[in-house]
This record gives sequence, structure tokens and C-alpha cells, in this order.
Amino acid sequence: VSPNGLITLCTDFGTQDAYVGIMKGVMLSVNPSLRFVDLSHDVPPQSIRIGALLLQNAVDYFPRGTVHLAVVDPGVGTARHPVVVVTDRAFFVGPDNGLLHRAAAALGLRQAYRIENEQLFRQPVSQTFHGRDVFAPVAAHLASGVPPRHAGPALDALRPLAIPEPKLLAGGVAGEVLYVDRFGNLITNIGMKELHAFPPDRVSVTIAAVSISRLVPSYASVPAGAPLLIVGSWGLLEIAVREGSAAERFGAAVGTPVSLAVGS
Amino acid sequence: VSPNGLITLCTDFGTQDAYVGIMKGVMLSVNPSLRFVDLSHDVPPQSIRIGALLLQNAVDYFPRGTVHLAVVDPGVGTARHPVVVVTDRAFFVGPDNGLLHRAAAALGLRQAYRIENEQLFRQPVSQTFHGRDVFAPVAAHLASGVPPRHAGPALDALRPLAIPEPKLLAGGVAGEVLYVDRFGNLITNIGMKELHAFPPDRVSVTIAAVSISRLVPSYASVPAGAPLLIVGSWGLLEIAVREGSAAERFGAAVGTPVSLAVGS
Amino acid sequence: VSPNGLITLCTDFGTQDAYVGIMKGVMLSVNPSLRFVDLSHDVPPQSIRIGALLLQNAVDYFPRGTVHLAVVDPGVGTARHPVVVVTDRAFFVGPDNGLLHRAAAALGLRQAYRIENEQLFRQPVSQTFHGRDVFAPVAAHLASGVPPRHAGPALDALRPLAIPEPKLLAGGVAGEVLYVDRFGNLITNIGMKELHAFPPDRVSVTIAAVSISRLVPSYASVPAGAPLLIVGSWGLLEIAVREGSAAERFGAAVGTPVSLAVGS
Repeated sequence: VSPNGLITLCTDFGTQDAYVGIMKGVMLSVNPSLRFVDLSHDVPPQSIRIGALLLQNAVDYFPRGTVHLAVVDPGVGTARHPVVVVTDRAFFVGPDNGLLHRAAAALGLRQAYRIENEQLFRQPVSQTFHGRDVFAPVAAHLASGVPPRHAGPALDALRPLAIPEPKLLAGGVAGEVLYVDRFGNLITNIGMKELHAFPPDRVSVTIAAVSISRLVPSYASVPAGAPLLIVGSWGLLEIAVREGSAAERFGAAVGTPVSLAVGS
Repeated sequence: VSPNGLITLCTDFGTQDAYVGIMKGVMLSVNPSLRFVDLSHDVPPQSIRIGALLLQNAVDYFPRGTVHLAVVDPGVGTARHPVVVVTDRAFFVGPDNGLLHRAAAALGLRQAYRIENEQLFRQPVSQTFHGRDVFAPVAAHLASGVPPRHAGPALDALRPLAIPEPKLLAGGVAGEVLYVDRFGNLITNIGMKELHAFPPDRVSVTIAAVSISRLVPSYASVPAGAPLLIVGSWGLLEIAVREGSAAERFGAAVGTPVSLAVGS
Repeated sequence: VSPNGLITLCTDFGTQDAYVGIMKGVMLSVNPSLRFVDLSHDVPPQSIRIGALLLQNAVDYFPRGTVHLAVVDPGVGTARHPVVVVTDRAFFVGPDNGLLHRAAAALGLRQAYRIENEQLFRQPVSQTFHGRDVFAPVAAHLASGVPPRHAGPALDALRPLAIPEPKLLAGGVAGEVLYVDRFGNLITNIGMKELHAFPPDRVSVTIAAVSISRLVPSYASVPAGAPLLIVGSWGLLEIAVREGSAAERFGAAVGTPVSLAVGS
């Protein structure tokens, strides 16, 4: 796969502090023809898991050869490695702390390299902002055609990230809320595999002591204000309220238990 | 009018969830040379009216041939039509739920087409994220030169959107707050037509039981902290507080009544 | 220095209201090949000082010939001058109210010009939105090669901005918090000069009655949850909490006093 000059950014830097703009300035100083798409800069501070989930669910929609630059890095300055990752369809640059593993696996992981080549860095390298001094310039060089192996020695494996797995029980599934989106939709960790184990018209889901038994093809299948179950854009079971917020309705957040059962 | 390769985006998707980045990835997968400008992604969830107002007041500032992609779509998955709209100066892509009508009319509506041509879609089409699977790829094809009529059959009319109209009374106007901007300026539905019906130096406006009688040419016409009346960048009467927030001062929000009267 | 076609934007316009998108539309109407990087649009409303600090700490990371467009303009419509500024490495466009001075000085101020040439404006010029009608089109013309002196007459000096200076005392320094970033890191006004006046291993800093005596090279030098002192990406002393928020821990905000002392 060859780089296409496009770099996406996914960070927990927010948009007030100019940290993201500074990274783009550094990258354009390496190569003024690079192009950027922001995935999210509002990953909750230091939440590697939410950054990893957002990245995993976005990268498949970008053209071949895109460089995905991701920085959620509570361990900046520690022994965690900065890495470059090559997959069948795209490249990744970021800290090897679990952030990249699921997205890279989804695109067909080929090889990872530890970033050690200081010639690719911005000098001097600060101890607090590797996004600016290490990750951004390496991403820019990579997107400009520098071969990934120039970053440093090959790594055997990326650090994985544990995501809570749904538990298959005798008559159902015990899961939880993985993510709450802007609309208050509750994205659970229950996927097609678990759903397909049960007859869809007999499935019901309980959250916060409320049972919902409508697994529907679209929001419009229920009246405004009604709760519903739907397979959402992440390919996972979502609990939603039509034209409302399921998070508010059920007082739910990341980690809230969700149980799926089969009615009679 | 010919497309110029520029696409603006106006949605209620927020910027945390990567939904906007995903739409851009889909569009760049259609045509990597497209360029984007974000109008707003912080339209309040499912507020068609605020999306329509922001769009209407922004589109006039873009070059000829721009494609305006707007998605505020509480009816995703229902019978509302996805549409392409051609105007004298620009194109629109979005749901036909009132979101596009005022902006399209402002640029000289020529013809609308119902989007039905699945060859322009991203497959498979989800039931929950037509922004990604329908609107984004259609906008990308349109901006790349696919003729609008390829989208589907011509539509007779776009669905209009009712915006509260000011009421002309014997000695004044009964209006309301249409929009509150970031600075707390209160944009009313009272326009130049209503204002010109009265002598400007005798106009006073009452909001939340407070009367303001200064229709001024600029914020600087009053001391810091003083309220004022001004014709703002939307061409509508705004109630502002110099270097302060009128929304806070008057406890006002969208819908708060505003009455204009002529003093003696 | 020649313009490179890149324009950065730093404003207090927020991202909900489409004001920023409108400015980009105006600039692309002048020259469709311009490129943009957002520094921040979440400068607190009308906070010239925070806008100036963000700008000062970002501009050094952009390529030669970049135009920095900055609009934090509580005096819009008053006698404050709109200006174009030429430095050794870049250009600035904005109001001469203190916003530009420090950033321009950091890049080597050469010459400022008052913006008076109405041929460079968008007509008609509103009284409330010079960002759209004056600053954006002037920045676009400048980035497209119009010589800065075409903007208007040369100015003798830019208006400076007073930033609270640290006070050197007999056995230490009295400073304060200049900025709180997204992570809750407290950026103080104590710089390398003041720090170097004391032996680093004997320095301690007191904030909110708590003493911190760890001036460390990286966050990882202390356990998670522990407070620390570090020289941050602005080159200033920062008070941080590893994987936490110092602003929350110490109830601190912009202006909170910080005292540095030398222990025995």
C-alpha cells in the first residue's frame, strides 16, 4: 500500500488549546501538500479505550493509503513505544498503548515498527508533547513516502486492548454499554454474533430495570419518544429513543449493564 | 452552474463521535481531490429549524458551484425523501424535511431531484446513518461532475419550513428570538422590512420586561455592559449587550417574545 | 517572505454559529486554492489575552509565509485599527488591540499597516462582523500575493498587551496561572529565566496552600494521581497531576497565585 497524502487525526487534545493546529503546522512544515481530516479531538482525556473504539469504527471509510495519526497518550515520556503500523489498506502512527491495535487488526495488520529514528522528529523533542515533536512529523514523513521501516526496528506485536466482552448465558447475553454518542444512543458490546444466536422477534433487552422488546430496522419503526433496539452504524446493538436521548431516559453511561433475554 | 469541488457540511452530528470524519472519508473515497468547509456540526440534535437558519445565512458567502451537504435528519429511515437541489449558484444535498428550503430559495431554486439512484450510494446502506451511506457519496459524485438529474426523478417542490413570522401591530411589531449565538446575542425574527416601517430614532424594544431604545450602528455606540439594538450579520434585529451576553442578561432563549414599539 | 497560500484562524467565534465557515467561504471566493488550519475558535468570548497567548505559542510551528488570521475583537466598529503585520517568517491579519503583538514579536516584527483599502473588503461592510467583511478578505488577498503595503498606511507600532509578569523576590518568585489547558494543566507565567535562577532540585512551588517539590522531566516521573512541576510545551512552568487535572485538584483557574521558593 502506498501513502495517498491524506492524514486523519484522532486525539484527546480538545479544540480550544491549539495543540491540534500546532500538529498540523508541524506536518505542513514537512510537506505543504498534505491533507487532513479530523476524526475526533474530543476523546475524553486519556481514555485509550474510547479513542480505540472511535478509530476502529472510522478507518474503514477512508481511501487506501491513508495515514491515521492517533494520540491518546497518558504515558507520554514513559517506556511505552511510539509506533508506525502498516496494514493492508492504511498506516497508523501513535503510541503502542492499546489505542491502535483494534483498528489496525480491522484493516489487516502486516507489520509494526518502533519509532526510534530521531531524524524524523522535530527537534528539540519535548517530554510532554510527543504529538507535536514525534508523532506528527513521523506521520508527515510517512504520508510523503518515507518507508515505514525507516522509523525503527520491527516489533513482534502491538499491545492489545481489552474491551469488555459480552457473556453468553443459557437464555441470553450479559453485556454493557460501550459508548454513548452525541444523540444519547447507547452502543452496547452485543454484536451480530450474539444477536443471531436468538430469534430476533423474541429478543428483549433490559437496561436500568426497563425492558425493551423492539428490535427494529429503523428509528421510524416506533413512535417519537419510544425506546427501541437497533443494529447501529458500528454493527452493534444500540439502545435508542426515537428523537430523544436513551442516555437521559435510562440514566445510562459507559459501563451500564445491558442484558438480553429471549421471551416466550 | 458547474460544481467547483468544494463541499460544505452542516449537521447535528457533533464533533466527538467521528461521524463527520467518516462522511469526509466516504467522500474522499469517491474523489480524493474534494475540499471541505465545516459550517456547523453543533446544530442542536434534530433541530431542523436551527440547521435551516444557519444554512440560509451562510450559503451566500461561498463560491459559485459549491455543494452544500446538510444532514439534520430525525426522520432517517422514514418516508422523507433524500434530495439533490440545484439553484442558480450552488447545489444542496440532504433530507427534504424543511432543512434545505430557505437556503435553496435564497440562492434561486431551479430544480430538485429525489435521490433514488443506488449506484451513487455506499453499499450496504444502513438504516441509521444515511449521512454516511447516501448523502455523503451523492454529494461527492455531484461535486465531481455527476449531473444532478442522475440522482433520481424530478420533484415538484421542496418541503417548506415554517419559521415564526413577526406580527405587524398598530403601533409596533410582535416578534420573538429566533437564535442565540455564541456571544449570547439574541437574533430576532424582526427584519429590515418591519424596522423600516417605523422611524429608527423612536423605536424601542421590550424583552423580559426591559425596554431598550438604542438602535445603534455598532456595539461601540454604547458603553461596555449596556444593552443595545443592532441590525446584525443575518440582516435581522439583534438584541446585544456590549462585551456581554444578552441571553444571560435577559434570561432569554429561542422563542422568547420580543416586542417593538414606537415611542413618542 | 512570500505567502504560501496557507491561512490559520484563531477566533472567539465558537464552532456552532457558522461564523468561521462563512469566513472560509469569503476567503475561497477570493481565491479557491487557499488552505486553512484552525488554531482555536474557542478562545473565551472577547478574551484578547487568551487569544494572544494561544497565537504566540502556535505560530512558530507553521511554514514560512503562512498568514495568521486572528479575530478576538470586542471593539469591532470602534476606533481600534484593523491591521496587517509582516514579520520575518509570517503575516498576521486582525484587530490592533493587543491580540497580535506578542506573536508578531516572536516571529520578528518588521512592519505593520493599517487596513484602509476598501477595495480589499467584502461589500457592504457590516458593523458587527469585520471577520467576514474586512479581516477574511484581506487575509485571502494577502495569502494570494497582494503586497501588505496595499492594505493601507504604515503604522509605527502595534498595540502591546500586558501579561502579568512574575515577580522575583529574595528567596523565590511570585507568579500566577496564565492558562488552563484541556487536561487541567496549569500553565504559569514562570519561565526558564526565573527557574534557572534557582537550583532545580531545591525548588518548590505552592498553589492553593499545597507545596509541590518535584520539578521533573516527564509526567512519568511521578505515580498516577501525583502532582508535579514540569516545563511544558509553552516553555513555561506547568503544574500538572499525572493522569489527572491539576485545575480540579487545586481549584485553580487563570489568575490563581503560584509562589516558587527555594527549600533548604
